[in-house]
Amino acid sequence: MPTKPSKKLQTFPNPNPDRDYEIVFEVPEFTCLCPMTGQPDFATIRIRYIPDRKCVELKSLKLYFWSYRDEGAFHEAVTNRIADDLIAAIDPRFIEVVGDFYVRGGIKTSVKVEHRK
Amino acid sequence: MPTKPSKKLQTFPNPNPDRDYEIVFEVPEFTCLCPMTGQPDFATIRIRYIPDRKCVELKSLKLYFWSYRDEGAFHEAVTNRIADDLIAAIDPRFIEVVGDFYVRGGIKTSVKVEHRK
Amino acid sequence: MPTKPSKKLQTFPNPNPDRDYEIVFEVPEFTCLCPMTGQPDFATIRIRYIPDRKCVELKSLKLYFWSYRDEGAFHEAVTNRIADDLIAAIDPRFIEVVGDFYVRGGIKTSVKVEHRK
Amino acid sequence: MPTKPSKKLQTFPNPNPDRDYEIVFEVPEFTCLCPMTGQPDFATIRIRYIPDRKCVELKSLKLYFWSYRDEGAFHEAVTNRIADDLIAAIDPRFIEVVGDFYVRGGIKTSVKVEHRK
Amino acid sequence: MPTKPSKKLQTFPNPNPDRDYEIVFEVPEFTCLCPMTGQPDFATIRIRYIPDRKCVELKSLKLYFWSYRDEGAFHEAVTNRIADDLIAAIDPRFIEVVGDFYVRGGIKTSVKVEHRK
Amino acid sequence: MPTKPSKKLQTFPNPNPDRDYEIVFEVPEFTCLCPMTGQPDFATIRIRYIPDRKCVELKSLKLYFWSYRDEGAFHEAVTNRIADDLIAAIDPRFIEVVGDFYVRGGIKTSVKVEHRK
Amino acid sequence: MPTKPSKKLQTFPNPNPDRDYEIVFEVPEFTCLCPMTGQPDFATIRIRYIPDRKCVELKSLKLYFWSYRDEGAFHEAVTNRIADDLIAAIDPRFIEVVGDFYVRGGIKTSVKVEHRK
Amino acid sequence: MPTKPSKKLQTFPNPNPDRDYEIVFEVPEFTCLCPMTGQPDFATIRIRYIPDRKCVELKSLKLYFWSYRDEGAFHEAVTNRIADDLIAAIDPRFIEVVGDFYVRGGIKTSVKVEHRK
Amino acid sequence: MPTKPSKKLQTFPNPNPDRDYEIVFEVPEFTCLCPMTGQPDFATIRIRYIPDRKCVELKSLKLYFWSYRDEGAFHEAVTNRIADDLIAAIDPRFIEVVGDFYVRGGIKTSVKVEHRK
Amino acid sequence: MPTKPSKKLQTFPNPNPDRDYEIVFEVPEFTCLCPMTGQPDFATIRIRYIPDRKCVELKSLKLYFWSYRDEGAFHEAVTNRIADDLIAAIDPRFIEVVGDFYVRGGIKTSVKVEHRK
Repeated sequence: MPTKPSKKLQTFPNPNPDRDYEIVFEVPEFTCLCPMTGQPDFATIRIRYIPDRKCVELKSLKLYFWSYRDEGAFHEAVTNRIADDLIAAIDPRFIEVVGDFYVRGGIKTSVKVEHRK
Repeated sequence: MPTKPSKKLQTFPNPNPDRDYEIVFEVPEFTCLCPMTGQPDFATIRIRYIPDRKCVELKSLKLYFWSYRDEGAFHEAVTNRIADDLIAAIDPRFIEVVGDFYVRGGIKTSVKVEHRK
Repeated sequence: MPTKPSKKLQTFPNPNPDRDYEIVFEVPEFTCLCPMTGQPDFATIRIRYIPDRKCVELKSLKLYFWSYRDEGAFHEAVTNRIADDLIAAIDPRFIEVVGDFYVRGGIKTSVKVEHRK
Repeated sequence: MPTKPSKKLQTFPNPNPDRDYEIVFEVPEFTCLCPMTGQPDFATIRIRYIPDRKCVELKSLKLYFWSYRDEGAFHEAVTNRIADDLIAAIDPRFIEVVGDFYVRGGIKTSVKVEHRK
Repeated sequence: MPTKPSKKLQTFPNPNPDRDYEIVFEVPEFTCLCPMTGQPDFATIRIRYIPDRKCVELKSLKLYFWSYRDEGAFHEAVTNRIADDLIAAIDPRFIEVVGDFYVRGGIKTSVKVEHRK
Repeated sequence: MPTKPSKKLQTFPNPNPDRDYEIVFEVPEFTCLCPMTGQPDFATIRIRYIPDRKCVELKSLKLYFWSYRDEGAFHEAVTNRIADDLIAAIDPRFIEVVGDFYVRGGIKTSVKVEHRK
Repeated sequence: MPTKPSKKLQTFPNPNPDRDYEIVFEVPEFTCLCPMTGQPDFATIRIRYIPDRKCVELKSLKLYFWSYRDEGAFHEAVTNRIADDLIAAIDPRFIEVVGDFYVRGGIKTSVKVEHRK
Repeated sequence: MPTKPSKKLQTFPNPNPDRDYEIVFEVPEFTCLCPMTGQPDFATIRIRYIPDRKCVELKSLKLYFWSYRDEGAFHEAVTNRIADDLIAAIDPRFIEVVGDFYVRGGIKTSVKVEHRK
Repeated sequence: MPTKPSKKLQTFPNPNPDRDYEIVFEVPEFTCLCPMTGQPDFATIRIRYIPDRKCVELKSLKLYFWSYRDEGAFHEAVTNRIADDLIAAIDPRFIEVVGDFYVRGGIKTSVKVEHRK
Repeated sequence: MPTKPSKKLQTFPNPNPDRDYEIVFEVPEFTCLCPMTGQPDFATIRIRYIPDRKCVELKSLKLYFWSYRDEGAFHEAVTNRIADDLIAAIDPRFIEVVGDFYVRGGIKTSVKVEHRK
């Protein structure tokens, strides 16, 4: 059932809303384009969240990351945007998004965004 | 004395109920089925708890995990259920259950549930 | 397109039959049953082969490993059988199959089978 | 000067009783017997303590661990007992004892006991 | 001086043609598309070669790998093609190309191609 | 667009000033001179900061580190100076600068500076 | 079915005698006594063999190692004896036995014995 | 300019006394003698401190550690003494000294001393 | 006795010329300039050689590597030149020089040169 | 039974002279003095040998290494001398001695000596 890249995140009801628990995703397959040079950038994205009423559906998350493939994105802005999109979709009690980008100019950059309801 | 898979957890009296201490299990041999596709899923389950009056017996814990082999189970729900079953069986002062699932769709998922009496 | 477990391995023509080159698969999600006790066994299977006219198709390989889930299988025999089934399906110039089984009775067992045309 | 296994822990006066400081021992050579089956069990014992008036002498600690070689001992009980024996011998300001036992039935067990004066 | 993705590999004369020596590149930033599903694939490409008259220029190598970003490519075929393109461009005394692809269907695939003049 | 070493740090406006988030740089390519002997020193510099109104631009950071190449610098003083220069340039909510220097006289030295607005 | 320590190794017929293949055991739970001092020694034993007509049965191997628990044994001699006992029991085409002993007197000792039919 | 072992620690003025920052030394080349047996002991010493008015000079620190080479020293006492000597020399805001000693009698010992002004 | 960077390698007579033996140096502190852009490059240099009549003196080797600090040098050429200079200085029975350069353009480059008398 | 440092190596008869087998020692506690500066040097010594008629006794080996504590010794010469002394004492079928010395002047040195009867 291969589908298209899409920024639309699917959700499902949290099966245990009475309890705070944590869901962690590690996504080593993220790529976008550098807005300055148009060249490809690569990163591993790590997400850690405590769901409230909704959880994010795994396959739509994969399509969501795919949707960045042909877009220009600065390291700082794109990590914040991923956090914002997830917050808009599932309104979690807590979320942390980390973007671990590959070495550029001899420097490895990482960006970490946290949000607490 | 090989026996059958079973959801029934055996317990024994906590030998040191006057003291808070921690018991940790690492179970790398967990498998269940994906409820959507029927295909096998695999995980390492990690349990960390402070016993109150009862401890969980190791062999029944092994049979308990075996009982998931032919059942459909979502990552989030099954990790919560394992926590609930252990809480029902031994009513611990504290328990943490982590399910580290294998890569699906290029994404590694982990779920962590905590409960404090 | 989830399908059923099956011992039938699909193949496709080797795209570069004029050259000896090596294909390696690492399959950490293998489980079968112990023929003595009926209890689950787990292993990581590693395959390394030099194709001749045919390559093994990845998805059918996954279904092939799934087909062992409810079968009894001794460590030594099952590793040899996986090698035999791959040889029968793709008749490779060289193949090595390794089964890395989990600890039983305090002992970790591994079996390595090689075949050269 | 090889001697005999013994539960008697020797001590010496804490050379710096005016200051809280920490002593850590890692003992990878611990073995006892399973009380159910009589079969050998193995563990690494880790001790971390803040001495008060007395420190435990290293050689007697080695003989102490040797004394478990022919005794039956459950994981939870033996880790608590080691803590109790050390508390009785040196009455420390703080002590933590961890028993990291080897895999049994596909499950790795660890027990951690803490005591604060 | 950011430029465009291109299959054209630039070369420069081997500064030490009288001696066999080895040049190794590790390229963790490779992505193409699965020809079956159109979905992104990711790999680390490793190249090891002994130059004859020509060496491959590093920046053109980077643009070369970029050129696969929007192309469909099977694991086995693309690793062979990278080897063929390098052989055509620099005619090395020896070359080895390894493609280490990310997990798909629970299976990690790697392809290794060698060529000796 | 290779340019010259320079102590002038370029900045850009924080794209998400409403949220505390963390940016991490790892710079393994730092070298300066020992002020006592004139001999080269090497270090890995790690920076972790929470931006306020401004972020530091990556390329100017690279040129900034290059500017130390021919300067004498003590371990303690240079790590503090890097922190001071970054504070002057971007006035962050929080910043940590770590200098991990290579072994000298059999001793490995590391310096960690923190600043909170 | 817990049984007694025993030097008697059980065997079963090699399921694939027509092919040379390798079986590897890693046994981290070996202990014996030092013949000089009577104190416990610990080792990890590694076995690698190519079966001929017979394979060694896993459970009897465990009981075999248990049988050394109360015996005095020099590092060099015991590793050779384990090899001799396995050769006598299964007459393998090839066998390698490694004894990795724990640190004594600040020195870590390892003994490796090979035998080829 | 090789000099002699000496317990005299040289200091220099803290270049940044207005800020709390941390200096870390890792010294893997420490040896002294066992006061009981006269035999050599070895350790890695780790120091972490926040300077006040004075910093310890690196070369004198090296000579300081050399000065223990022919002295008898118990693990607990020597680690406390190193802390005391550093406190006397530089009067730091905070200091932690860790002595990681090599295995003796199958037991690895570590001592950690902290001091806060 | 700090001295100046110099391409002049000092030697001393091989103390054991009757035997083939191997000397290995690992030099993580190498830097030169990119001949195209003038920007700094960094590498770890590894040397492995079998001496004939002469050995290279360690301190002069350090000054030798220092001498590259302000020179432009291509990866392939500089690794060959280091080998040539060592061959000219000590005429070894065998030598291998490896240059492990840091990531540039997302690609890690390594060059390995061997020479046998 | 602590004794004195001594260059005299004790031996015992090889318990299995009819078979080639390998004995490995890892000695992380070696220290001597630099003959140029008189300062301490540290190394890990690794020995691997195939005994002929005699094996080296472990305790005398420890005293042998202790005997270097107050002697000046160049890296290359001392590794060769250790090999020579062992060859003189036990006349092995094969021996390899490796000296892994600690970083000096930013360079890590290792010396490997082999001898075959």
